[in-house]
Amino acid sequence: MTAGTDDSKPAPSNVRGAAYPRIHADLRVTFQVSVPTATSVRLQPGGHESGLGSSTMDLARGEDGTWTVTTPPVLPGFYYYWLLVDGVAVNDPSSETYFGHGRSTSGLEVPDPSVDFYQIRDVRHGEVRTRWYRSETTGSWRRCLVYTPPAYDDDHTTRFPVLYLQHGAGEDERGWTTQGRANFILDNLIDAGAAKPMIVVMNNGYALEPGEVPTTPPYSPEQTARLADSFRDLILRDVVPVIDTAYRTVADRESRAIAGLSMGGRQALDVGLKGLDTFAAIAGLSAAVFDPIDPDRDYGGVLADADAFNERVRLLWLGAGTGERRFDEALASMESVLTKQGIRHQAYRSPGTAHEWQTWRRSLQALAPLLFRD
Amino acid sequence: MTAGTDDSKPAPSNVRGAAYPRIHADLRVTFQVSVPTATSVRLQPGGHESGLGSSTMDLARGEDGTWTVTTPPVLPGFYYYWLLVDGVAVNDPSSETYFGHGRSTSGLEVPDPSVDFYQIRDVRHGEVRTRWYRSETTGSWRRCLVYTPPAYDDDHTTRFPVLYLQHGAGEDERGWTTQGRANFILDNLIDAGAAKPMIVVMNNGYALEPGEVPTTPPYSPEQTARLADSFRDLILRDVVPVIDTAYRTVADRESRAIAGLSMGGRQALDVGLKGLDTFAAIAGLSAAVFDPIDPDRDYGGVLADADAFNERVRLLWLGAGTGERRFDEALASMESVLTKQGIRHQAYRSPGTAHEWQTWRRSLQALAPLLFRD
Repeated sequence: MTAGTDDSKPAPSNVRGAAYPRIHADLRVTFQVSVPTATSVRLQPGGHESGLGSSTMDLARGEDGTWTVTTPPVLPGFYYYWLLVDGVAVNDPSSETYFGHGRSTSGLEVPDPSVDFYQIRDVRHGEVRTRWYRSETTGSWRRCLVYTPPAYDDDHTTRFPVLYLQHGAGEDERGWTTQGRANFILDNLIDAGAAKPMIVVMNNGYALEPGEVPTTPPYSPEQTARLADSFRDLILRDVVPVIDTAYRTVADRESRAIAGLSMGGRQALDVGLKGLDTFAAIAGLSAAVFDPIDPDRDYGGVLADADAFNERVRLLWLGAGTGERRFDEALASMESVLTKQGIRHQAYRSPGTAHEWQTWRRSLQALAPLLFRD
Repeated sequence: MTAGTDDSKPAPSNVRGAAYPRIHADLRVTFQVSVPTATSVRLQPGGHESGLGSSTMDLARGEDGTWTVTTPPVLPGFYYYWLLVDGVAVNDPSSETYFGHGRSTSGLEVPDPSVDFYQIRDVRHGEVRTRWYRSETTGSWRRCLVYTPPAYDDDHTTRFPVLYLQHGAGEDERGWTTQGRANFILDNLIDAGAAKPMIVVMNNGYALEPGEVPTTPPYSPEQTARLADSFRDLILRDVVPVIDTAYRTVADRESRAIAGLSMGGRQALDVGLKGLDTFAAIAGLSAAVFDPIDPDRDYGGVLADADAFNERVRLLWLGAGTGERRFDEALASMESVLTKQGIRHQAYRSPGTAHEWQTWRRSLQALAPLLFRD
């Protein structure tokens, strides 16, 4: 199938000028790569059960040494993927790379013709600011990304609430804007009056204390606990004071929320529920919390007294995709404990999406309008 | 050679936790990658004559299927590179990728133990803001990066001059901060009082008019001219007004400079010299201007009248590395024409560096203190 003779278009995630991957009107995707020397080329979708499918696909060799495959129709969304060239994992030179799976990984954006809530539209846009700050917790300079809403510089007095928003395992602070398009989601919601103008702060979720050597998962329970402690220290001791100093925030707990996805969801629940002096709204998106919650033991016991909790917390929000069984079950388990405890909470389920960015884009779209309401 | 048993350290450009590439105290570099199925693996430095060397190097296979090579001592700097696995160009999964060579490409940062002018230091840091703007020239939303100096938000009245700063061919608007560390160079200069606090605006140098199909180099003379016209329109009609509206700039020509490297150097000279109503300082860093300048014909003839030019232009600055012969010769040719014409200008040569980021980091370090002086 030749580019330009059918209804297909280059994916928006292609590098400048690359003709492939191409997305067809029925959402089949054609990948093509030139590797004359290879004896086999396969397409490997990242993750499990995503809208790109879950198994590898063989590319077929053409006479000129290009290899091509067209997938069945896929679901709209963002997908990590790579190619297996004679078994070696390589990025597709035609696609942009995104930090996922602990490295720079090819990504494919499949537009959803039915929605534009995460597209750049003809509305006012906020900025995404890269800020460097010194962390006492890690003993290093760190980078965070800060979304400021479109009206931020309209005057010098208005103050804004702050959402702290965390990425998942193997990703970094760039994930929520680059893969997740959080800035465009907020721009569109704010333009429509559907969400309050807010600042969004995105940090790297890996925080090691000075001298600690980085390791890769799986982590022992002790490592997991130590990483959680470091990250909580980072947010509460380092980041929140930096943000409240550098930006025109409303510096009180009612105007701070913390949310995250997957590993970041577990972190958001941990930091938020143990940090109710700092946060009054807490959200776990596909939160990686797989052990049943024990209200008396977990999160410093704050879930034990429902009346006190409900009085103090403005929003406890949980989300998952219906296509990510393990996380959907984790959500159901959490809901059941919370309901039994009488803890007020809200839950959201993204229809048909798995452990992937489309779930989290939709989750942010559902969550943001609920934040910082009286 | 085993990691940790010698004086070597992981490169700062490694992804989180990756042990290789490792840099030795004498600046040899050890690369290692696990590809059990491969029959040959080679290291390919990007570009020509860079401090990483100019020819491919064979990696040697170990019993466990890891492939390793240690280079001779290299020069400090930033280098694009990739691996040739059985002849197929692949990125090194251990290194961050950077947009260069028209795609996501592995990069290696080799620290220079003798200087820290481009390192993050314990000084106040500016922000790098991502801004989206609507371009009438291209009929699309575009992204630019805007460095605001550390004091930008200290008050609401101070206005700042603006440097427009362009990347080279095959790179994009991220190059100057990610590869070039322009923000840290400016932070350090401003902290030392060596450069005036300034805003720096970095745009994608590729600007196609609506409907035009992206192509790849080499370009015909007509394409080159059309691309130059579109880019000049983009900067003068779209970008400058957006920046003067969105930021507290000093919106006059004496407080605007334009500079760029390689292709961006050619663009800076083109936009600046043909746009003296907008810019009063113009700099070409390793500018890709290979045809001898004709003062009567080129740049709208502004070089024909030296007195008028010298009266009007505060700074015309040219730089190159002594290790990039073609660009150094281009610089010498331009200097000779300018000197003969009586056009006041300054030239800088980076000792021993080639067509690579170390040349441009040093060039910015040399250029920035000269900007916006009375």
